Amino acid sequence: MHENLNYYKAEELYNIKLHGRMDPDSKLIALLSNNQGIEMNITGTELWLDIEADFSFMEPWAAIELNNVLISRFMVNKGKHDICLFRGISSGRTMRVKFYRELQAMTEDPDSRILIKGLWTDGLFMAPPYYDHKLEFIGDSITSGEGTYGAKSDEDWTSYCMSYSKTYANLTCKALNAECRVISQGGWGIYSGWDNDRRHIISKYYEKQCGLAAGEENKKYGSDKDHDFASFIPDAIIVNLGTNDASGFNQPPFIDPDTKEVYKLRKNDDGTYLEEDCESIIQATVDFIKLIRKNNPTSHIVWLYGMLGYDLSLILSDAVKRYINETGDNNIKYLMLPSINKDTVGAREHPGYESHKIAAGILTDYLKSYFLQS
Amino acid sequence: MHENLNYYKAEELYNIKLHGRMDPDSKLIALLSNNQGIEMNITGTELWLDIEADFSFMEPWAAIELNNVLISRFMVNKGKHDICLFRGISSGRTMRVKFYRELQAMTEDPDSRILIKGLWTDGLFMAPPYYDHKLEFIGDSITSGEGTYGAKSDEDWTSYCMSYSKTYANLTCKALNAECRVISQGGWGIYSGWDNDRRHIISKYYEKQCGLAAGEENKKYGSDKDHDFASFIPDAIIVNLGTNDASGFNQPPFIDPDTKEVYKLRKNDDGTYLEEDCESIIQATVDFIKLIRKNNPTSHIVWLYGMLGYDLSLILSDAVKRYINETGDNNIKYLMLPSINKDTVGAREHPGYESHKIAAGILTDYLKSYFLQS
Amino acid sequence: MHENLNYYKAEELYNIKLHGRMDPDSKLIALLSNNQGIEMNITGTELWLDIEADFSFMEPWAAIELNNVLISRFMVNKGKHDICLFRGISSGRTMRVKFYRELQAMTEDPDSRILIKGLWTDGLFMAPPYYDHKLEFIGDSITSGEGTYGAKSDEDWTSYCMSYSKTYANLTCKALNAECRVISQGGWGIYSGWDNDRRHIISKYYEKQCGLAAGEENKKYGSDKDHDFASFIPDAIIVNLGTNDASGFNQPPFIDPDTKEVYKLRKNDDGTYLEEDCESIIQATVDFIKLIRKNNPTSHIVWLYGMLGYDLSLILSDAVKRYINETGDNNIKYLMLPSINKDTVGAREHPGYESHKIAAGILTDYLKSYFLQS
Amino acid sequence: MHENLNYYKAEELYNIKLHGRMDPDSKLIALLSNNQGIEMNITGTELWLDIEADFSFMEPWAAIELNNVLISRFMVNKGKHDICLFRGISSGRTMRVKFYRELQAMTEDPDSRILIKGLWTDGLFMAPPYYDHKLEFIGDSITSGEGTYGAKSDEDWTSYCMSYSKTYANLTCKALNAECRVISQGGWGIYSGWDNDRRHIISKYYEKQCGLAAGEENKKYGSDKDHDFASFIPDAIIVNLGTNDASGFNQPPFIDPDTKEVYKLRKNDDGTYLEEDCESIIQATVDFIKLIRKNNPTSHIVWLYGMLGYDLSLILSDAVKRYINETGDNNIKYLMLPSINKDTVGAREHPGYESHKIAAGILTDYLKSYFLQS
Repeated sequence: MHENLNYYKAEELYNIKLHGRMDPDSKLIALLSNNQGIEMNITGTELWLDIEADFSFMEPWAAIELNNVLISRFMVNKGKHDICLFRGISSGRTMRVKFYRELQAMTEDPDSRILIKGLWTDGLFMAPPYYDHKLEFIGDSITSGEGTYGAKSDEDWTSYCMSYSKTYANLTCKALNAECRVISQGGWGIYSGWDNDRRHIISKYYEKQCGLAAGEENKKYGSDKDHDFASFIPDAIIVNLGTNDASGFNQPPFIDPDTKEVYKLRKNDDGTYLEEDCESIIQATVDFIKLIRKNNPTSHIVWLYGMLGYDLSLILSDAVKRYINETGDNNIKYLMLPSINKDTVGAREHPGYESHKIAAGILTDYLKSYFLQS
Repeated sequence: MHENLNYYKAEELYNIKLHGRMDPDSKLIALLSNNQGIEMNITGTELWLDIEADFSFMEPWAAIELNNVLISRFMVNKGKHDICLFRGISSGRTMRVKFYRELQAMTEDPDSRILIKGLWTDGLFMAPPYYDHKLEFIGDSITSGEGTYGAKSDEDWTSYCMSYSKTYANLTCKALNAECRVISQGGWGIYSGWDNDRRHIISKYYEKQCGLAAGEENKKYGSDKDHDFASFIPDAIIVNLGTNDASGFNQPPFIDPDTKEVYKLRKNDDGTYLEEDCESIIQATVDFIKLIRKNNPTSHIVWLYGMLGYDLSLILSDAVKRYINETGDNNIKYLMLPSINKDTVGAREHPGYESHKIAAGILTDYLKSYFLQS
Repeated sequence: MHENLNYYKAEELYNIKLHGRMDPDSKLIALLSNNQGIEMNITGTELWLDIEADFSFMEPWAAIELNNVLISRFMVNKGKHDICLFRGISSGRTMRVKFYRELQAMTEDPDSRILIKGLWTDGLFMAPPYYDHKLEFIGDSITSGEGTYGAKSDEDWTSYCMSYSKTYANLTCKALNAECRVISQGGWGIYSGWDNDRRHIISKYYEKQCGLAAGEENKKYGSDKDHDFASFIPDAIIVNLGTNDASGFNQPPFIDPDTKEVYKLRKNDDGTYLEEDCESIIQATVDFIKLIRKNNPTSHIVWLYGMLGYDLSLILSDAVKRYINETGDNNIKYLMLPSINKDTVGAREHPGYESHKIAAGILTDYLKSYFLQS
Repeated sequence: MHENLNYYKAEELYNIKLHGRMDPDSKLIALLSNNQGIEMNITGTELWLDIEADFSFMEPWAAIELNNVLISRFMVNKGKHDICLFRGISSGRTMRVKFYRELQAMTEDPDSRILIKGLWTDGLFMAPPYYDHKLEFIGDSITSGEGTYGAKSDEDWTSYCMSYSKTYANLTCKALNAECRVISQGGWGIYSGWDNDRRHIISKYYEKQCGLAAGEENKKYGSDKDHDFASFIPDAIIVNLGTNDASGFNQPPFIDPDTKEVYKLRKNDDGTYLEEDCESIIQATVDFIKLIRKNNPTSHIVWLYGMLGYDLSLILSDAVKRYINETGDNNIKYLMLPSINKDTVGAREHPGYESHKIAAGILTDYLKSYFLQS
């Protein structure tokens, strides 16, 4: 097999665009998080990946783009695989190829991982695709594309329902020819997870290379290293968080298994949110924005909210305003997106592809106009 | 002419739905403002209106709907006219007919007016159309439909560019089967008009019957009477203001011709808005919401913003939040709408029909879900 | 009135684009048929038409376009009227203005007519709009826009339901920047009208200037003069006929009031069409194409069919093929258009605006590609 | 692996819907052609297929639907594979699952094959999905979905560009809840292949079970057996052929390698088609329809044409009409579909997904109305 092809170890590859925060010291290319992957412009008639994958209960999914268009998307099972990215291409033609992980980093499954060990090809690696912008997306299940695949009736929390390929993040980046990095985790929030679990907040791992990819094994691939923010300076950072914090008000209390502390976002008798808890969310939001700003002094920040309801909107806009007032930093915007309706909902009562297309349209318009002015 | 038809004086009409705030004491039906009009279910083969119109420089436009669908839209010139709403209809059929003013109330042209004096028909007046909801819209040129008609290249400020027929207000009301009242004025704001003229704020006339219809003559038709808020209790009041206040920061100072006071919304050297002026807008917004609430204790209030840019969004959301904090009244929502882009812009760089359709979709979804819960 | 404006008699006008087949000898501009009208590029702040209209039972409707966009559409009543096309325009600006008849020529109402006697303006007539192509449309109620206005529930045969403004003819011509002439009559066919009345066939009047505008009075405006085909050489002639011939098979016999002859398109017992009657339609179709070709030696001919069902499609395509075989003339195409469905149907179970948009898209694509090749 | 799952050999499976013409005597389920596959309603938490695949140069692709929605699509490489159709599903839930071949039968690659040998699951096989209709599609590259995947710039003839998932055939069947069988081959025609190779005509293999799957090995799976037409009686048979016959007129002559005969569809000097060759196509079309009718006495036949240009339309409609005239059989319809434009074209200048959606809309409307009447 592959007898007329050359084998290149991952560490030997050149002219490769690596997507996502990756450990420069790793010999293998570890796809631990959504949109982590490799991309190249390559001649040759065939291209195969040499990969090894694992998972405990949430199997990773991957996708293949040829010439910037999705042509394949599939589950990656445990073990070693040869994955053919293309074959039967005319000799001499240059193909743009991208292979990337669809599934978010799995905090709950430390084994969910795709390792690229090398590749076989008879082609040459040309200069990789050039991007006009760099964007970073920070979010929850919406940004993890939960619901972008699957039937409206699907209820199970499964890998196939999640994607990068059909998210507003991908659509926006395609429209702007932007390189994209995503840090997102379904169920997580700013101050609290959907179930009042306050350990599930994205800020905790934002400064790590890939902190949402849990477990000892992933540390081998630099998951818990400090991220080198100088290595990727986003033109804009898009945060789409708050949906799970809103959920906490409607969920039962959560007892921290370690500290036995009881966490609960509380409502008043009239159904409104307890002021004190709103304050906690606002403070956590301000703090998270400061954390982002500290690490990204020049990036425009866009806070998005609304695709799954508007409940927390005034709390989030208040937080953004307070951040501006406290710091004098105006390089930030708060935008509301339309909530799902019966036509735009996807699987698991999450935003479907139609909802993501609308969100991407609004965000793209905004960023285009921002980039024009700046 | 009209020899086989009966003439009904305006004051004699029964089974008529009057749209807009109208003076119950007036013998004539005065259409002074957008969507003011009459609607009925009527049998008969013909229906003609007996009207008299006037204007100084902004001629009124009117529209006709048959069976809830727009079939005609036209300029109404000075003088007396017989306007045929339909003819050639089969005897015995019931037609739903609406005749309404397209043009906003003209603060700058006190003569802009259509008077319905009576009508000719051979039909019978059946029970008028029933509406499931009552909505009130308060706004500026966006809500006055400026740009919903005309070519993208049109630049003159003319009556034909404005409408009720193609606004998000009308589209939302059609989708919800809601009766609609509109109080809107191009160029006006919450704290300041587009040109820093602080006299041009909607709150000033909100409690009048039709205060935006200026002039002595219009007073004959009750324009400056106090509005009887008990006579029309909206399920929701939609405010779409702020666009012109934002404009003030970019415009030269305005000198009040009477007081010689100089008005100007100011920027800091770095281009941001002066905190003190933002505070003034916030305070004016809070005050206006309180005024609306005072007169409409039960109505849900929705503040919309964004169709012409997001510049003032955090100031407006802050005002809404402060209102809630100060009053404990949570029966209010702040929603952002997508700004125009090259596909959705209309005439005079204002939102076009496509933009209004998108806005109506988002507002309709929101109100549907609000009505379901309440 | 009009005191600062100059009056121009119709016969004195220059730099005017006249739409539709018109009598060069007429002192008045007579709008007897759909899309007959005038268009100009004009400076000035105001423009008024001096018109006189009449009808017996089907009142004419008219439309106004400013800068190539529809802004008004309305019934024109009997008598003399001043119609304002625009006012309040900045001095020095050039406006493109079109005023045209919406309603088809009325064979059944010889009085249905709009006469333009002159106009008032303070502007100058600039070079009129330039068109890249000339197109002629020949059709029935579909091409007369029946159903493009009005509610789906509307059933009466009224003028307001018909238009040129929302037809595939207008949409196609706008997309191609083509000058448009229309010869169409609801209910008429190639060999037979919808009710088996064989007098109602378009070919009968094709060589007349405006033969479908019946009556003695219209002759004053040249309606029955021979059309000078050299005066307007279409790049393409689009025929959309056959729908009413198909209807004849399902309708009762028609007795010619003059000859007492009985006309009926007949079915076999199994519901299929009688071969002999199909032959008659085919022969009439071939003859009509020959008539068109005789008068338009160079024009590409496109026969359209299908918007109201496909029943006669094979008969029409057969006729087109026979025409080619008999004459060797290949400068002709047969195209099927999608039939209406519940989303695209308009008033009176005729194609609605959505259906016309789809038809225009297909025709525009075809003509674009034809014009590219030729 | 699969330790808690039961293994079922293909021959033991029950409650399985087999898609496509398959050999009832085969112990393995051989997917030789597009949309051949298996479908079931199954409980259980996991489902794996035991497959073995092969190809020489055109690798097969497959797709997975869960609950009637596409969730995965991928290349199937040579050799034995465990393919997971789903995992991680809640115990007790019933999932509708379909696994099918995307790639057409490959006349040029007799090794292109997916064999299902069995499956592992912990679930129970419930009654399989019920379909309201049975449809058969006969076509060329259009029906083989060539161009439905891939970038517009893609030029190579590769497996990934072809699909069943995004074809009008699949979309129509989903809209009508119809079971679908497809017999299609890129480049083939009625009388001649695209390159004038007259051996490449679909009729030759229509009566075989899966004759387009060439080669000795495929015979093991019944490919060259006579198809039992009684086993699947289509409500309608849709033929979409003619595009390649049209191409022959523009291609160089083809020399039959066996007989050395020279094949060429010829043009006259003026660029029109030679009458004699048109006749040959017409005759071949009539003969093919007769062949279809012979085997399917009750099925409605719909001949489609136009997605890649209208050149042969009058020849095909003529053939359909002649068939009717010769046989008196009216249970057949000829429909034209809109040709691609710049927005609807896909890869390899073939119809893209947008074009297939339009075609499916027109065909679905037609069949719905046919089914209503019949």
